[in-house]
Amino acid sequence: MQITISKAEVQFFIWEKANQVWQERWDREEKVDTYIKVKVNMRAQKLLTPTNFFDYRQSCRLFYSDEPVKIIKARGQYLFDENDKRYLDCISNVHHVGHCHPSITKAAAEQMDLLNTNARFLHDNIVMYADRLAATLPEKLCVFYFVNSGSEANDLALRLAQQYTQHQDVIVLDHAYHGHLMSLIDISPYKFRKLAGQKEWVHVAPLPDTYRGIYREDHPNPGQAYADTVKDLIEEVHRKGRKISAFFAESLPSVGGQIILPQGYSTKVAEYVRSAGGVFVADEVQTGFGRVGSHFWAFQLQGEGFCPDIVTMGKPMGNGHPLACVATTVEIAGAFTANGVEYFNTFGGNPVSCAIGLAVLDVIEKEDLRGNATRVGAHLKDLLTKLQTQHQIIGDVRGVGLFVGLELVSDRDQKTPATETAARVVKRLKEEDQICVSTDGPWENVVKFKPPMCFSMEDAELAVRCIDRILTVTFKLEKEDI
Amino acid sequence: MQITISKAEVQFFIWEKANQVWQERWDREEKVDTYIKVKVNMRAQKLLTPTNFFDYRQSCRLFYSDEPVKIIKARGQYLFDENDKRYLDCISNVHHVGHCHPSITKAAAEQMDLLNTNARFLHDNIVMYADRLAATLPEKLCVFYFVNSGSEANDLALRLAQQYTQHQDVIVLDHAYHGHLMSLIDISPYKFRKLAGQKEWVHVAPLPDTYRGIYREDHPNPGQAYADTVKDLIEEVHRKGRKISAFFAESLPSVGGQIILPQGYSTKVAEYVRSAGGVFVADEVQTGFGRVGSHFWAFQLQGEGFCPDIVTMGKPMGNGHPLACVATTVEIAGAFTANGVEYFNTFGGNPVSCAIGLAVLDVIEKEDLRGNATRVGAHLKDLLTKLQTQHQIIGDVRGVGLFVGLELVSDRDQKTPATETAARVVKRLKEEDQICVSTDGPWENVVKFKPPMCFSMEDAELAVRCIDRILTVTFKLEKEDI
Repeated sequence: MQITISKAEVQFFIWEKANQVWQERWDREEKVDTYIKVKVNMRAQKLLTPTNFFDYRQSCRLFYSDEPVKIIKARGQYLFDENDKRYLDCISNVHHVGHCHPSITKAAAEQMDLLNTNARFLHDNIVMYADRLAATLPEKLCVFYFVNSGSEANDLALRLAQQYTQHQDVIVLDHAYHGHLMSLIDISPYKFRKLAGQKEWVHVAPLPDTYRGIYREDHPNPGQAYADTVKDLIEEVHRKGRKISAFFAESLPSVGGQIILPQGYSTKVAEYVRSAGGVFVADEVQTGFGRVGSHFWAFQLQGEGFCPDIVTMGKPMGNGHPLACVATTVEIAGAFTANGVEYFNTFGGNPVSCAIGLAVLDVIEKEDLRGNATRVGAHLKDLLTKLQTQHQIIGDVRGVGLFVGLELVSDRDQKTPATETAARVVKRLKEEDQICVSTDGPWENVVKFKPPMCFSMEDAELAVRCIDRILTVTFKLEKEDI
Repeated sequence: MQITISKAEVQFFIWEKANQVWQERWDREEKVDTYIKVKVNMRAQKLLTPTNFFDYRQSCRLFYSDEPVKIIKARGQYLFDENDKRYLDCISNVHHVGHCHPSITKAAAEQMDLLNTNARFLHDNIVMYADRLAATLPEKLCVFYFVNSGSEANDLALRLAQQYTQHQDVIVLDHAYHGHLMSLIDISPYKFRKLAGQKEWVHVAPLPDTYRGIYREDHPNPGQAYADTVKDLIEEVHRKGRKISAFFAESLPSVGGQIILPQGYSTKVAEYVRSAGGVFVADEVQTGFGRVGSHFWAFQLQGEGFCPDIVTMGKPMGNGHPLACVATTVEIAGAFTANGVEYFNTFGGNPVSCAIGLAVLDVIEKEDLRGNATRVGAHLKDLLTKLQTQHQIIGDVRGVGLFVGLELVSDRDQKTPATETAARVVKRLKEEDQICVSTDGPWENVVKFKPPMCFSMEDAELAVRCIDRILTVTFKLEKEDI
């Protein structure tokens, strides 16, 4: 029996060489390229059961794992597969100023050709870059630590908070994800609920989701009400004889389902946390660098009066290059270094990373990408809101700038998550329209948009038109099923 | 009073903007370039005391912090400052195939211009790269996780070990350093002794240093004797009712003082650790990719029969680009993914990182850099060994390939660390000869060589000649002091 196995299986099969017998079969097969379809099926051969094979390949889940795409080039908001088929990319927030932006490539190549040492040597780039970042932040956030990933940034933020406060406990939001490192799994309910469980020093506050959370749009002051849940949690922690080092939250919870924090929330939380001797950490890894349009940082949506004690940044910072950062105050940095133990990061803040970071900031400004995010994001949200009047399944449309969520529910009153429909929308948008979106939220029923910042009005219109068509057909089919 | 402050102070002053008053002064000063010497001295003004200012800037210690160099370009094993003064680089192991190697820059720029997505999309580069790495390793190490730094790799290795064994405890070598993340400070005696202290699940085995450790050259079988210390430690751990997840060690302890593990050590330790249900993790972040010359990995120096369960790699892997990896077995990877929680790393294994990794492997082969490391490393060690006959202060010369240490002692019998002389050698080599070396070891008395792999015979001869001159003068001066 000969069955064709998918490209995904072939890739992970080779990558992990899960079974030597299979490697030998592979070697004997004619290969036209790395992904030629192997003409034998491991399941049919019973050498590997589907279950244990799946175990091996799922440590990193592919997009569209049933029929993955092999993208070989990209430009702006477009991806191209090996047959030159074009896909509209609505999800790559990492490729912030557009895939393969020539200014970024040029800056990287020029600096790579010149010098790429480390932060133990003096270099202009790190100084200029820190200065440029400082100009986007409130004055008191003026100390910068350059690292290689949002995870490294959040790990360092946790160290800084604990060292400064000399307290241990952390409050996080429900469903939060702050990174893949051991310390961060501990503070990520999205992960620890499936793994080692909740540590005694970690406390989970309700997600301030005004659509389906404990306080909703109809509440007179959801910001205050949700902040009070943090206050209550702090009191509970104190009753246990424990002390808060930090409140740790994304400025717009992403994995939690593209949530917009209610007004007043962060200011109040910061007040409560600081009264308890803790600090406020704003995780801007997904949301920073102008994605929200009106402001450079999403935490700034909470008003001029609000300033976190620590801000972490990552994904969009290097447009795909591993570059991340922690910004904090002189007081916190002082407490961190006062013990005399240095922090050194081999690649962090090297001249190439900083050259790329500077080039990203230049492109954001020169191409007015914040302005674009404001205009296109508003248009996208308008179109989706109009769509909501035609499709009962659209429970909520929310977002700011190019950070937008479309929450699907099978019942508007019960807000029953329409998880399967959301998955179908993602799959059909890819197959029928070559549009890449994905889902988030605890029930994976929130279709999310966080495209490269050069996303255009036409792109927004096309995506909404296709969603309209897919929902119309789906609705029609579901009716027929009944 | 007007005193010139050093470039280092200016850089860290701006970078961290330690004091707003000083920022304002800076703004008022005429600037000719980023490092123009500010004509006012903060110490004289008493706005910041030397102590608290030093606190702020020392979170990353500069090389030559008294008079740091501003390097603006580099090529091969040479660095050039802003006055085009050339320095010979004997320490940049990260820039493995030479600074700014044109093949690496070309590979990076070409791939950056084409595509830089992530491991959720199929791409040839990740498959080809994993295949190439697999070819350098024993067959059973065939699963690869790509990450951004040696620290991320070691954190993941710890997770893998704990998940696979379902045990918690870790044995590490004394003075070891495995990275800057919270989880790694816990397993790095070099760091935790100065910080939070030793956790109950971490156990420290003696450093198998046959020069100044508990068993020395004169011992009939130091490999077995040191391995037995690990066996004893395991028994102690078991008596406490605890269980070993991993023995974690650099294949050649670097921060510990350029230590060469005695023959037989790793094989025996692996046997004991596996009997206790644990795994052997070889940290090759400093030592991998052919640095030892005769082998691609330093753990291979322990003989064909020895194979770790997990290997971590980093620094030299991307020649300065943030690229690192964990290699392990199908069994360990299977246990890791069996819980159904995926591991995703935003930048890890992206097409650009993999293109760079592939280019590094190509250059190592094409330029026979392993052969060069063998030849030049042997010559360097020979020359240093000859020097030892002329200078009583040279207590030990050890190394393999281009990983060489020169241990200075003020008394050969007592092996009293000559820490100050070592610092003087580093400083004078830089000032008088423009040669960059640095020190390692618990007493910072081991002058270390781990240069780019293109280091030449002439470079080795120059470095040794200059050390000879400096030691001669120092010795003469010290005699005069007496």
